[in-house]
Amino acid sequence: MTTIDFAKGHGTHNDFVLVPDLDGALDLTEQQVAHLCNRRGGIGGDGLIRIVRTGKVADAPEGIDPDLWFMDYRNADGSAAEMCGNGTRVFAEYLRTRGLVTDDIFEIGTRAGTKRISTVPDGYAVDLGTWQLAREEDAERRGMDSVVQVVGAPSALPALSIDLGNPHTVVALPTEVSLDQLDLTDAPHVDPRPPHGTNVELVRPIGHGHIAMRVHERGVGETQSCGTGAAAAAIATWWWGNRPQDQLDWTVDVPGGRLGVHLDGQRVALSGPAVIVAEGRVELPIA
Amino acid sequence: MTTIDFAKGHGTHNDFVLVPDLDGALDLTEQQVAHLCNRRGGIGGDGLIRIVRTGKVADAPEGIDPDLWFMDYRNADGSAAEMCGNGTRVFAEYLRTRGLVTDDIFEIGTRAGTKRISTVPDGYAVDLGTWQLAREEDAERRGMDSVVQVVGAPSALPALSIDLGNPHTVVALPTEVSLDQLDLTDAPHVDPRPPHGTNVELVRPIGHGHIAMRVHERGVGETQSCGTGAAAAAIATWWWGNRPQDQLDWTVDVPGGRLGVHLDGQRVALSGPAVIVAEGRVELPIA
Repeated sequence: MTTIDFAKGHGTHNDFVLVPDLDGALDLTEQQVAHLCNRRGGIGGDGLIRIVRTGKVADAPEGIDPDLWFMDYRNADGSAAEMCGNGTRVFAEYLRTRGLVTDDIFEIGTRAGTKRISTVPDGYAVDLGTWQLAREEDAERRGMDSVVQVVGAPSALPALSIDLGNPHTVVALPTEVSLDQLDLTDAPHVDPRPPHGTNVELVRPIGHGHIAMRVHERGVGETQSCGTGAAAAAIATWWWGNRPQDQLDWTVDVPGGRLGVHLDGQRVALSGPAVIVAEGRVELPIA
Repeated sequence: MTTIDFAKGHGTHNDFVLVPDLDGALDLTEQQVAHLCNRRGGIGGDGLIRIVRTGKVADAPEGIDPDLWFMDYRNADGSAAEMCGNGTRVFAEYLRTRGLVTDDIFEIGTRAGTKRISTVPDGYAVDLGTWQLAREEDAERRGMDSVVQVVGAPSALPALSIDLGNPHTVVALPTEVSLDQLDLTDAPHVDPRPPHGTNVELVRPIGHGHIAMRVHERGVGETQSCGTGAAAAAIATWWWGNRPQDQLDWTVDVPGGRLGVHLDGQRVALSGPAVIVAEGRVELPIA
């Protein structure tokens, strides 16, 4: 056993174990990451973020300034992942509150490349990259490209598939179906079935540029928040509304809080809060 | 926002937020406890244990030495609770490793009165008090007092009800039914239905004085470990085996680890490991 520094934080209740590795000396094994993310045996989190200089990360993509702080994002099972919208804000909050970054707008390294982060009134905004209709022909011809069956809804509902680097299927609920009445214990059934599965967003319009949603994440189950899912939900709702150019800012209520989505052509940015809850020392099993 | 000291620990993966309050100055509201036990928004735990002198606890039972360390146990929703077998060991580990207690055998205060704790090779042993058959007449006459239907078992199974201050219904699985095949997503159906509900233990004999079990806790669902449940499972198995006086020590494998149960007439003691995983400072919302 040894002990290391850690922090715990969340963005709209998507939560993370943060491990500062300012010298780049720490090489966490899959088992160690899984232990730290274990909610009963370790600290607990949806994922782990190591804070390290890009130049110290063996598998960092080429072309990132080696002095940038790198978000070494790992899934709760220990496997490496590209990035995570909600996690990016928590990473940013750590950098800012610990004085590792002092600018209001700054860049970070991620496995998906360099990302620009802006400090905004409700927290941080981060560019999620580009989006596209996953099944454009069907979508353009019929306004939908698939149907989704979800427990609690009386019938199959039309859906739109959005690709944001990861797959999303967005369903707008008819007025007689409430978000509360849905049962997301099991994955909604999507037809045609996407070859690699999909995240499913169930969306209820609230008002002008304002929606509420619940999300079933591929391979995980229902979660309190999904950053790219919120972006997909806003994009689909905007697309169904005939892409109004005066309605590019969206408020998306997820079970864990409130997110903002900004559309800019094929690019999309996500904003929202980030909180560091605790900080301390944690025991680390020998690799 | 203010910040307070905390630790996180577990006993057979029943986990707790520990809050040292050595001066007795901290009065945590239900909301603050619920926040700290929230797994995504706070630290996360099955419950919270405040470490405080008995003399500083307004609702401590009478007759406890005011200088004893008191285990102020709170459920994850913030409500006060009597005690918790697994939590007692984690409390003991905190007291011992932080130098607040130096003896190998010592007493603590709890809402269930003074409890004696012994340091043992696998961790700590604590007296759980007395047990009794909850429906003694039926049990004596038929060897069982109820039947339990659990998803995954082909038929209803005979069961024995044990009262340990809290209610338990213990089921011995027939050899053709494995623990793995049971589905404890929903509470097993107990007939006759106990008026205030019950914890249900599903037990598989492993060998001489050795059983494995899974548990569905009343109002909670399946858990990794339940201290009084392990005791009830050992007592029922011992009782079914005609109460052999040379078999008073039991090993009970729960999903979260291994516990020991020692029978002494109508008294029962629980032993097992305890781990402090992390320590630090956590933000506390203003009450």
